Amino acid sequence: MLIVQKYGGSSLQSADHIKNVAKKVQHTVEQGHQVVVVVSAMGDNTDALLELAEKLATMPSARELDQLLSTGETQSSALMAMTLEHLGIPAKSFSGRQAGIITSYDYGKARIEQVDPKELRNALAVGITPVVAGFQGVTRSGDVATLGRGGSDLTAIAIANALGADRCEIYSDVAGVYTADPRIIPSASPLGMLSYDEMLELASQGAQVLQTQAVEFAKGQQVPIYARSTFSDEPGTVIAEGESIEKPPVTAVALNRHIAKLGLLGVPDAPGVAALIFGELAKHGINVELIIQAVSHNQLNDIAFTIEEQDVKRAEPIVKSCLQQLGGHSLVIDTHVAKVSAIGSGMLGRPGVAARVFKALANGNINIQMIGTSEIKISCIIDRSDAERALGLIHEEFNLGKSAEMIED
Amino acid sequence: MLIVQKYGGSSLQSADHIKNVAKKVQHTVEQGHQVVVVVSAMGDNTDALLELAEKLATMPSARELDQLLSTGETQSSALMAMTLEHLGIPAKSFSGRQAGIITSYDYGKARIEQVDPKELRNALAVGITPVVAGFQGVTRSGDVATLGRGGSDLTAIAIANALGADRCEIYSDVAGVYTADPRIIPSASPLGMLSYDEMLELASQGAQVLQTQAVEFAKGQQVPIYARSTFSDEPGTVIAEGESIEKPPVTAVALNRHIAKLGLLGVPDAPGVAALIFGELAKHGINVELIIQAVSHNQLNDIAFTIEEQDVKRAEPIVKSCLQQLGGHSLVIDTHVAKVSAIGSGMLGRPGVAARVFKALANGNINIQMIGTSEIKISCIIDRSDAERALGLIHEEFNLGKSAEMIED
Repeated sequence: MLIVQKYGGSSLQSADHIKNVAKKVQHTVEQGHQVVVVVSAMGDNTDALLELAEKLATMPSARELDQLLSTGETQSSALMAMTLEHLGIPAKSFSGRQAGIITSYDYGKARIEQVDPKELRNALAVGITPVVAGFQGVTRSGDVATLGRGGSDLTAIAIANALGADRCEIYSDVAGVYTADPRIIPSASPLGMLSYDEMLELASQGAQVLQTQAVEFAKGQQVPIYARSTFSDEPGTVIAEGESIEKPPVTAVALNRHIAKLGLLGVPDAPGVAALIFGELAKHGINVELIIQAVSHNQLNDIAFTIEEQDVKRAEPIVKSCLQQLGGHSLVIDTHVAKVSAIGSGMLGRPGVAARVFKALANGNINIQMIGTSEIKISCIIDRSDAERALGLIHEEFNLGKSAEMIED
Repeated sequence: MLIVQKYGGSSLQSADHIKNVAKKVQHTVEQGHQVVVVVSAMGDNTDALLELAEKLATMPSARELDQLLSTGETQSSALMAMTLEHLGIPAKSFSGRQAGIITSYDYGKARIEQVDPKELRNALAVGITPVVAGFQGVTRSGDVATLGRGGSDLTAIAIANALGADRCEIYSDVAGVYTADPRIIPSASPLGMLSYDEMLELASQGAQVLQTQAVEFAKGQQVPIYARSTFSDEPGTVIAEGESIEKPPVTAVALNRHIAKLGLLGVPDAPGVAALIFGELAKHGINVELIIQAVSHNQLNDIAFTIEEQDVKRAEPIVKSCLQQLGGHSLVIDTHVAKVSAIGSGMLGRPGVAARVFKALANGNINIQMIGTSEIKISCIIDRSDAERALGLIHEEFNLGKSAEMIED
């Protein structure tokens, strides 16, 4: 088999960690497989570089930040290649450029536009294990661009696709995807299998296991992803376009505490109002998720929506200026909210799932402020102080926890 | 003027150091000059990476070491570019590859084969200050190669030459070239002017101010070098093909404590013996400097020579095998030696300079074990415990110290 294995920063945080990962790669190679390794930067290397940059410039140029941050992954790839060679496995490091990864010009959050895997193929053909620096590529003008946090997942999946690999294994410090974050819900159980769409909803709802763009890419190219732990031999979770035979209505729950709710009160109930507000936010790259418009009252209206908490600073002046243009009454910003979501492709065409979510929260005396749904997801905005409890109630409602026997085991 | 400014690692060891250097560049730009900045890695960054590599592999591959170590200079260049931009100076970082530096395939000690300064010229043309990562380039197959320790000097001078710069300024933590190492000889005085040949002899005799290859390169292309301190406004030393009007016989003295003396005793006095020994050493890249052959005695001979102390481990088995082939008596390895040298183009055609060196050492009761000379240099191998004292005696013999008035000043 041709296998792409990606190892995250927590799996590479010290010399001993690197040696451990190299032995895992050696083991796979010695089983007769061809392996392409993709690595992140060591531990908190990226944060240390960011901190240094912030000491030097209040607004560091995005191009220079990418040139700087990309060095972390380049270091990891060289260190991993020399460790493999030390173990007797011929290996060679590749920067994103050397691996043929061409990206868009959006420094800091570039998209992979093309992968030319010629050099990787040449290495594999002569028995060399390529070790690719994740998270990076080059623009068509030869400047280094990074793919955004978690972008090494995308590197791995894009390479797996370009090489026609049999599978892409994503190693991190968690043993796959769980029915809920195990740090919050101790009874959360690992999922053996997920569809791309379920994984996409989970990733976008705040589950940190896999990068959203990476899952989208894998879905498009139908690359099966194996999400596993570096530190155990558990099978982990397979993400693929599997047939859902008798799926439960909800597969997993997710929590995002890093959102904010914005409310524009007393704006005119006229055409073009929403277009103005959300057009301006989109123009500045601010992602809006749930939107609620109250029922019109005296030709005035209230509009509320959620954004990522980190975008509040940038969004505030934009929304204020809209409010002024529209002659609205006031702006309310609430950062004490959280979003809980229930996800499952089994809810397709099965009515009553949303009602069970709402009932579970009501029984816990938790007030729902906003509701958003997709075909396979139900999200509720609630008070942040209720967040963990709400997650547990929904997890329990759909019996996602380990069964008593499993825990005994 | 078009000026290339190179800043060494000790000038860039912290955020504050980087800011200080950025201000110096800003000052030069604001005087109306065009500047190309060349930077080394921050402080002891390179040593930290080497240490990590040694934990992972006993003999790290040279290609991977270069891929790893080059990241230090890439980081510096990005950090410097963003700091300049923060000061309002448009700037852009360039890796060796982006600066068009093509090297030989000798990883770890590559030579610059070609510089294509097109991208640097494009940047300068639109008022952007390029910041080039020193010490690195790429081979014709696109692999990163480093130029060896101190290689950033070479980067700066090669770029100055390719751009037809008016001068190349090399900034470090010393204010130019001195008549002797001021840490050993406190009365050592800075030299205002040196010829390329004098600088070459000084550099190869252990003076750490400028990299030998860089000086060779500058000599070939006649680029004037200004060696200065980052931390003072002293004029420093100019290295150029100046006319030597009434030069003193000795310009400066140098000391190298990192050498070893090897002696092969009782080898046959026959043709081909020296060729065998020094041919084998050369084949393994070990540089031999002084060679002494004793007067033949009973058709047997003794051969002694010096090498860098760091090469002893590699040289020992090679020399032992030669000794065995030749049926010689024994091998003596002496690492308690040092080399003092007096350098000056003023000694050309002026007899008696060597005699003054020998007399100065004799007066100090210092035994000379070996002697080596070039047209502008006299070197003596002596006991290492006499090294500093010998340097002082020669320095004094030729009145190189600051005059009493100067010290009073």
